[in-house]
Amino acid sequence: MKMSSLFLRTLREDPADAEVASHRLLVRAGYIRRAAPGIYSWLPLGLRVLAKVEQIVREEMDAVGGQEVHFPALLPKEPYEATGRWVEYGPNIFRLQDRKGADYLLAPTHEEMFTLLVKDLYSSYKDLPLTLYQIQTKYRDEARPRAGLIRGREFIMKDAYSFDADDAGLERSYELQRGAYQRIFDRLGLEHVIVRAMSGAMGGSRSEEFLHPTPIGEDTFVRSPGGYAANVEAVTTPVPEPVDATGLPAAEVLPTPDSTTIDTLVARANELHPRADRPWGPADTLKNVVVALVHPDGARELVAIGLPGDREVDLKRLQAAVEPAQVEQATDEDLRGRPELVKGYIGPAVLGPNGAARTHDDAGRVTAGAMRYLLDPRVVPGTSWVTGADADGMHVFGLVAGRDFTADGTVEAAEVRAGDPSPDGSGPLELARGIEIGHIFALGRKYAEALDLKILDANGKAVVVTMGSYGIGITRALAALAEANNDDKGLVWPMQVAPAHVHVLATGKGEEIFATAERIARELEAAGVEVLYDDRPKVSAGVKFADAELLGVPLSVVVGRGLAEGVVEVRRRASGDREELAPELVVARVRELVDAALEG
Amino acid sequence: MKMSSLFLRTLREDPADAEVASHRLLVRAGYIRRAAPGIYSWLPLGLRVLAKVEQIVREEMDAVGGQEVHFPALLPKEPYEATGRWVEYGPNIFRLQDRKGADYLLAPTHEEMFTLLVKDLYSSYKDLPLTLYQIQTKYRDEARPRAGLIRGREFIMKDAYSFDADDAGLERSYELQRGAYQRIFDRLGLEHVIVRAMSGAMGGSRSEEFLHPTPIGEDTFVRSPGGYAANVEAVTTPVPEPVDATGLPAAEVLPTPDSTTIDTLVARANELHPRADRPWGPADTLKNVVVALVHPDGARELVAIGLPGDREVDLKRLQAAVEPAQVEQATDEDLRGRPELVKGYIGPAVLGPNGAARTHDDAGRVTAGAMRYLLDPRVVPGTSWVTGADADGMHVFGLVAGRDFTADGTVEAAEVRAGDPSPDGSGPLELARGIEIGHIFALGRKYAEALDLKILDANGKAVVVTMGSYGIGITRALAALAEANNDDKGLVWPMQVAPAHVHVLATGKGEEIFATAERIARELEAAGVEVLYDDRPKVSAGVKFADAELLGVPLSVVVGRGLAEGVVEVRRRASGDREELAPELVVARVRELVDAALEG
Repeated sequence: MKMSSLFLRTLREDPADAEVASHRLLVRAGYIRRAAPGIYSWLPLGLRVLAKVEQIVREEMDAVGGQEVHFPALLPKEPYEATGRWVEYGPNIFRLQDRKGADYLLAPTHEEMFTLLVKDLYSSYKDLPLTLYQIQTKYRDEARPRAGLIRGREFIMKDAYSFDADDAGLERSYELQRGAYQRIFDRLGLEHVIVRAMSGAMGGSRSEEFLHPTPIGEDTFVRSPGGYAANVEAVTTPVPEPVDATGLPAAEVLPTPDSTTIDTLVARANELHPRADRPWGPADTLKNVVVALVHPDGARELVAIGLPGDREVDLKRLQAAVEPAQVEQATDEDLRGRPELVKGYIGPAVLGPNGAARTHDDAGRVTAGAMRYLLDPRVVPGTSWVTGADADGMHVFGLVAGRDFTADGTVEAAEVRAGDPSPDGSGPLELARGIEIGHIFALGRKYAEALDLKILDANGKAVVVTMGSYGIGITRALAALAEANNDDKGLVWPMQVAPAHVHVLATGKGEEIFATAERIARELEAAGVEVLYDDRPKVSAGVKFADAELLGVPLSVVVGRGLAEGVVEVRRRASGDREELAPELVVARVRELVDAALEG
Repeated sequence: MKMSSLFLRTLREDPADAEVASHRLLVRAGYIRRAAPGIYSWLPLGLRVLAKVEQIVREEMDAVGGQEVHFPALLPKEPYEATGRWVEYGPNIFRLQDRKGADYLLAPTHEEMFTLLVKDLYSSYKDLPLTLYQIQTKYRDEARPRAGLIRGREFIMKDAYSFDADDAGLERSYELQRGAYQRIFDRLGLEHVIVRAMSGAMGGSRSEEFLHPTPIGEDTFVRSPGGYAANVEAVTTPVPEPVDATGLPAAEVLPTPDSTTIDTLVARANELHPRADRPWGPADTLKNVVVALVHPDGARELVAIGLPGDREVDLKRLQAAVEPAQVEQATDEDLRGRPELVKGYIGPAVLGPNGAARTHDDAGRVTAGAMRYLLDPRVVPGTSWVTGADADGMHVFGLVAGRDFTADGTVEAAEVRAGDPSPDGSGPLELARGIEIGHIFALGRKYAEALDLKILDANGKAVVVTMGSYGIGITRALAALAEANNDDKGLVWPMQVAPAHVHVLATGKGEEIFATAERIARELEAAGVEVLYDDRPKVSAGVKFADAELLGVPLSVVVGRGLAEGVVEVRRRASGDREELAPELVVARVRELVDAALEG
């Protein structure tokens, strides 16, 4: 590639909408270009990097027996209706109608289509195991597309699907993919942490995310000293042992005027009702938060969450816990028909089984009476709380869980904090942020059951197939690579995915400089090295160096002033190391450095 | 690839909706699978063929300096509004809205986006010429998707766009692409004819189609003995010399009761008003057909087409002539306000300049008075006609064009017939059918003007860039290949695009047969030959042979009964030729045959 004709303009200014380094640099270096919010065009250099990332993924998928196929992006509604996802996806997918009024979607993932295709073709346990994959364009109508390629609306994914006759088979297929993912991210040189994750709208029994740790990541995850790691949504709270409440005094309702927040309540309690052994703290209080759940069928349900007053509700954790319902703030409208809820003084007495008698609909949802009441797992039987007394300016002290109130169940909705005990008992949790670059799901039989994918087993009995689903965000992984490999001057690609192996720069004006640079470029190409050659005749050395640093090709060969003394320079982008050598030695030296980097 | 684990089921039955061989065989052989009308999934073998076709296209694009990029399929409305195509495409594109209500389309072609990108990055004549291309998924909401991949709604195209500072540059870019197209179709082994075409909705000055001749093609084209070739829409009628009408008698209105068709008119004329020298024939009559044009802005305009009575109006030719307006049949509703039109007796006297005085709107369209009147080019001044007298049961005889009536212009709307004189004067036209596999357009400045793409020329003056647009239907070309290469047993792929070079079949039960077949397969792969190995243990030789013939891999190596006598068989799918040779000679022989085919 010659820079004089390459379709490229590097930019000195950051794009106005760029929040993160990868977005900023990929645009400035002319790899991508925004076409619409969350939708990008790929320019020649970007497309080369993309093709290399895809090829690494393809090779590792093939190595574990994956077979590549390619499905459409534009799909009919019906299969997604059969699994319930047409409704569950809500506003998160693009929907459209064709000229005849038939409903279609732009697929965000393809479980349904793969299931139907296997059903179409296969019928016996002898046909399994089977793993299919594709590298394909996907769509999500994100509410807030952001960070360039990291959260886009049109993006490229590798999605794979495994089909097995039994759970042991699924376990093997899952482990094969898991191993392939580790090798893919290792080959890309992309640091990753495997964390437990929620299955969410996908369904299924087991799910792990591959996160690339970075402060700009959208996902928060935890790690324990013992190696436990989980997406914050998936962290399970270690449940304390129940407390023996025998002998605890009866609960007592006491005045706490103007105490509608935890802070004012704690201050008021210590002022009006001091405790003998130690002062009241936020962790002694039980906070009851009312939220609205919007179910896929549109039904709106109020639910109360009870949790220790020293913790906030983490809406992402709550959201993950109640999927496919959507969590919303409870509105004044919601609360109008609920006179029993006294703002700032809501207590268990009016909630769940403790409250007014209830009736339910067919889906088991409360239609009249007290709303559902879900407790943080820390509120174990026998624990004693200060909480609302359901009357203005009144709280109840010494209300004991299990003795004085119960709930409809528990929920993982409280925030996770650094220092919280790890579920594996190995010590305090550490919090970090990451970009989700891969996600693997042991789906089980959800899709096969919904779409009736059965095979005959060895005894001739029809059994439902069990499935796994495995995704890598290809364009997002590329962004994560850019995020992990840059400095203040630009991108610093690893050799494996760089748009070229070496950037040859002719800097200076002499005809001999250009002739030598061109000859070196040609010889490097003949030696199988991928070359970007800056042959622009009237561009200054300074601009060429700045462009080379911005573009981030791992090696440069500078043919310039030194040529008069019989030397050219080989530079390494990452370390900045430079070495001078005779022009006739350059090709062998570069080939050696490229090979070392590709093998490493 | 081993057949025992390959995701493949060949079908013995034709799919119910398959009308043509390529569709039937690609589905039966497990290359593609229908997902929705006009929307297909690609199975492993199909994807391999697709990748090879793409690669040949890519190499030839690169060879003429094309630079590969990749644009989104989901695009905002605005650029397409700026060029008028958002409206012009009507129901032929998929449209949708995002969650915020913004309008998007699934792009059928990308002129606008490429124009805007070049505008974004380039500003000087020194940056040009530039040719960009992509291989990308495209969408059209076809009214009648048909013939499998031949007319689909989601399909893969290579689209390229050239940018030049002046017309001479465009001419060079156009010729480079034209040459690349010839090499691509030559390498694919796909017979093609280059025909003149209409630019249609694309606009521009020059346009040619690459048609693959086949009776199942949707496009009709003509060829002359002298080499003229054109899509039937683009055929221009050789205009006869004007006739000297001096001395012709005045026109005469005569009764022709019950003569509302050409046949009855001719019969009636010969019965009531016989001509001395020869009987009246259909070619002596001037037929006036009223149609409705629906303009992009929704306006509906009635237009009369006058043509010799021995020819029908070809609606596709008329449509191409009046684009972007859409042609519709005139309805009773349309005609209600036109008492001057006497059904079956419409004549020039009430049409165009001959009719009632007219008023026009800003767009130059008739708002009141006689409708526009367009004549077939054969109706030259001085020709004499029998035509309607605008009164029931009356025709006018000897009405002379130019003397007795005029028109608003001419139109190429009459059917083209085999034997018509060729525009190049080389003799009678021959008609044939073909599949459009490529289309190249010298667009000129239409898009650059609409989107304000200008560059500074050598004198520092801003000039509008001139563009070309060049498309290959990749998936359609693959279908055309399947259409051209099959027999009653299945597909017969050329080596260049076959899913594998050789199909190794182990036929028989002996362990040695399988061991030998496996060894040959492995050695072939080691020699760089792509192998499909039928290792299925319990499948009969008959089924294996039938599958091999259906799949259409160019060479087979059959390891079976002959092995006992020390021979295996090499078969050629196309010719059916067979040769027996010792197993240890097979690899070299196959390598030789593969090389010969790939070079040929």
